[in-house]
Parts: sequence; C-alpha cells; structure tokens
Amino acid sequence: MIIIGEKINSSIPAVKEAIEKKDSSFIYDLAKKQSQAGANYLDVNAGAFVDDEIEKLAWLLEVVQNASDTPLMIDSPNPKALAKGLSLNKTPRPIVNSISGEKERYKAVLPLLQEYQCRVVALAMDDEGMPQNAQEGLSKASSLIKQLLDDGIAANDIFVDPLIRPIATDDSYGKIALDTIRAIRMDFPKVHITCGLSNISFGLPARKIINQAFLISAMNAGMDSAILNPLDRSLMASIFATTALLSNDEYCMEYIEQYREGNLEI
Amino acid sequence: MIIIGEKINSSIPAVKEAIEKKDSSFIYDLAKKQSQAGANYLDVNAGAFVDDEIEKLAWLLEVVQNASDTPLMIDSPNPKALAKGLSLNKTPRPIVNSISGEKERYKAVLPLLQEYQCRVVALAMDDEGMPQNAQEGLSKASSLIKQLLDDGIAANDIFVDPLIRPIATDDSYGKIALDTIRAIRMDFPKVHITCGLSNISFGLPARKIINQAFLISAMNAGMDSAILNPLDRSLMASIFATTALLSNDEYCMEYIEQYREGNLEI
Repeated sequence: MIIIGEKINSSIPAVKEAIEKKDSSFIYDLAKKQSQAGANYLDVNAGAFVDDEIEKLAWLLEVVQNASDTPLMIDSPNPKALAKGLSLNKTPRPIVNSISGEKERYKAVLPLLQEYQCRVVALAMDDEGMPQNAQEGLSKASSLIKQLLDDGIAANDIFVDPLIRPIATDDSYGKIALDTIRAIRMDFPKVHITCGLSNISFGLPARKIINQAFLISAMNAGMDSAILNPLDRSLMASIFATTALLSNDEYCMEYIEQYREGNLEI
Repeated sequence: MIIIGEKINSSIPAVKEAIEKKDSSFIYDLAKKQSQAGANYLDVNAGAFVDDEIEKLAWLLEVVQNASDTPLMIDSPNPKALAKGLSLNKTPRPIVNSISGEKERYKAVLPLLQEYQCRVVALAMDDEGMPQNAQEGLSKASSLIKQLLDDGIAANDIFVDPLIRPIATDDSYGKIALDTIRAIRMDFPKVHITCGLSNISFGLPARKIINQAFLISAMNAGMDSAILNPLDRSLMASIFATTALLSNDEYCMEYIEQYREGNLEI
C-alpha cells in the first residue's frame, strides 16, 4: 500500500488556523509524525485560502520540507498553485493532486506533469460531471487513463481516484465504489488506485469504523493506495493485516515486525 | 450476516473447566450474553471429552436451552453425539456441525439431517483430505453441495465451510481462502458460506486485527455467516459497517440503530 498522509490540509480547521498564524511548529510536527508513522507521501493543501492560496502553499511547503524528506503530494484544483508548488518541491517524484477529464483542467495540468516528470492523481470525472454508477466510473476512468498514456505519462505514475461518495447520502455508493475499483483494476493492472478514504463515511456516526471497513474492502477490490490519517494506528494495523491476508506479505514478516515495534492496535 | 456464537466450546480451557465442574451459571451466562449480543445461533461443543462427550453435551444443551431460545448449532465430529444432541434440541431448525465429503461421515450424518429437518455445516473436504488450493476447495465444496442437494437438503440449509487455514503456516492461505469463497459464491448463489473465523490468525500476534480484516475481506468475497465471538464489539461493529458498505443496509438504518444503542466501537 502506498500511504498518503492527509493531515496537512487547510480544510481541517486546526490546520487552517495554524497556517493563518504561521504556526510553523504545528505544521512541522504534523509532517514529522506522519512520516514517522509510515506515510509514503504527504499531501499538502492550502486550497481553503481563496485569495492567497499560492502564498500559503509556498509557506507550507517550506515548513514541511524542513520537517521531512517524504515525497510530497501537491494538492490544489488551481493549476497556478500546482505550478508554484512543483517549482518549490525538492522531494523525488512528487504527486500532483489532481488532473481530471475536464478539458480545461486537463490542458492546464498536463504540461506540469511533463515538465516536472511527476506522478498524478487522475479523478474519474469529466465535463459531464461525476460518474453515477460503476459503469460510468470505469468509462470516465478509462478515457482519462488512455489520454494520459497517450500523452506520455507512465501507467505506474497514474493514481486513479474513482471518487468515493458518502453512503449516508445513497446506500448504493459503497457497492458502486467497490465495483468501480474492481473494474479499473481488471482493465488496468498497472495503474495505482487511490482515494480520499474518509469521504465514504461523511454524515454517519462512528466514522472510523466505516473508514476501516471500507479500506479493507477496497484493498480486496484492488485499491493499492489511499489518502488517510497515518496517525490512526488502528487503520494502519488494518492495512498490515489485510496485506498479509491478500498474500502480499511474505511469511507475514512485515505484520510481525510491526507488532514487535508496538505499532499494532485494534 | 448469520452470526454463530463460538464461546460454548470445550476446546476453550475455561469452558472445559466449567463443564467438568458442572458450573452451570458460567455456561448459562455465556449463552445469555451471546444471544443478547446478537448471535443468531449458539455453537455447543463438548468434543474435548473423549470418553463422555455425549453425557457432557447433554448437560450443556440443558443449561444453554434454559438460558436462551436462540437456535443451536450442535457441534461434534461424532454422529452419535450429534444424534443425542438433536434429540434434546428444542430450538427451531438447528444446525448440525458438521458433515463432509468423507464417505463414512456423510453416510452417518445424512440420516440425521433428514430425520430432524435441520441445517448443516458442509466441510469442503473428503477422503483425500483438505483442499490445497482454491480450485480444489471449489471442487470439494461443489461435489458435497451437489450430493446434499441430490439427497434432498435445500441449498438455503447448507452452510459451506471452505476450511480456513492459518496464514502463519503458509502465507498463501489467505488468498486461497478468499478465492475459494468467491468461487463458491459464484457457482452457488443460494448456499450459505461460513467459517470458524479465528483459524486464520492462529500462530500470529494481535489475532483480533487479523480476524477482523479477514471477516471484512470474506464478506466482500461472498461469505454470509461466521462462527465468531459476538461479545467482541469491535468485530460486530465491522459486520454492521461492512453490511452497509456492501449496500445491504437500506439507508444505513441498522448501522445507525446500532450506534444509537451504544453497540459500535472500534
């Protein structure tokens, strides 16, 4: 599993406040802790600052890169912010979050991927909107993946996001999400599949239980990456357990090692 | 999910001791608590008593049936013990645990199923032994299911057990178990699929984490029943969450109800 730490995101109130106050030790700490907890990437997002996102993102990137060498996920819907972020990035092979099948966005983000040789989250949506069922999800994901491959992006650098919607708003969304992941995995064995894990549980109580069950379910369906909270040890324990159950942990060595280091809890 | 409470089993040292001492309040309590926690069946096993299993089983069944009306799973490799247990059972449609493709065992257990109109756990093994891979698992399960159907047992009364083996002994056993479940579900949509959940984690530390991840994984593969500890609230919470994620909980009502009753914890 490729773990992307979700914590440095301006949509989280405490993080937004820290950015406003330029509380660098708060951000430094979040970067350090997520890296130590096993994050393979750190998501960095200043999108809540509509007027000065670029400036705030630049500050965030400086603090985060002082705290850790973990590769970055530069997260913005704004291609200008992505460009600035990439110019400031010092980590190897960062991920841009995100491109989509929307024509304007695609045209604006693609040159950045080519210029900086980076990886990219590809949202399964286009100018007609988000997919309404698994078939549409696969179709929108397929078109976008094929376009990216045509434009020279390697399959292994594409992280497809099937766009998870909350089961509280429609109880079919869980099955749709899992069916979409399974279908993408069948058709594109070499791309990565990722998602923002916590969307699935929005609006429900005891969200951690839903997030954990969805993570395990999605790994079974073929998801091999997720944007999540690596400081949630119960969630991380589920990842190690599921990796072993899917026969991707030789002799269960990693699972046993994590136990010895005191990292497993339920 | 059809939940079968695993706690009244003489292979558990504290339970064995309680049976030896005829400590009926200990057993009564286990039956009561498992029923209240949502068990649909209670497994009752006295198999650790080689010399007087039948007598011990009879005593257990009396105590358990005083404590609760929950239907029983009568659990023994010994057809004589099964016969005695069935004669003492007062609950509707008990489950016999178990029949298999082994010729002698099949011949001895089938008449009991027919006489008592009960349900049955069907172990995917035969006189050649346990399956070594998913293909053999499906093949042994298929032969046994077809034989039972031919002999007049309804698909809905068959609980196939694919025989889960510990991933600590061979790291391919997790994938084999899940592939077997998926294959049986594809070929036999109407049979139930069950297993003794905790076998998967034997020999590993922090077994609850593995059991929970396996339960969720197996539900995704098509398992709709399990023999487990219903007093493990974290495990039960996973079942409610996964049921909602698989779009089998309309408006997530059951999940929300369980939360309101204070039953969800991680």
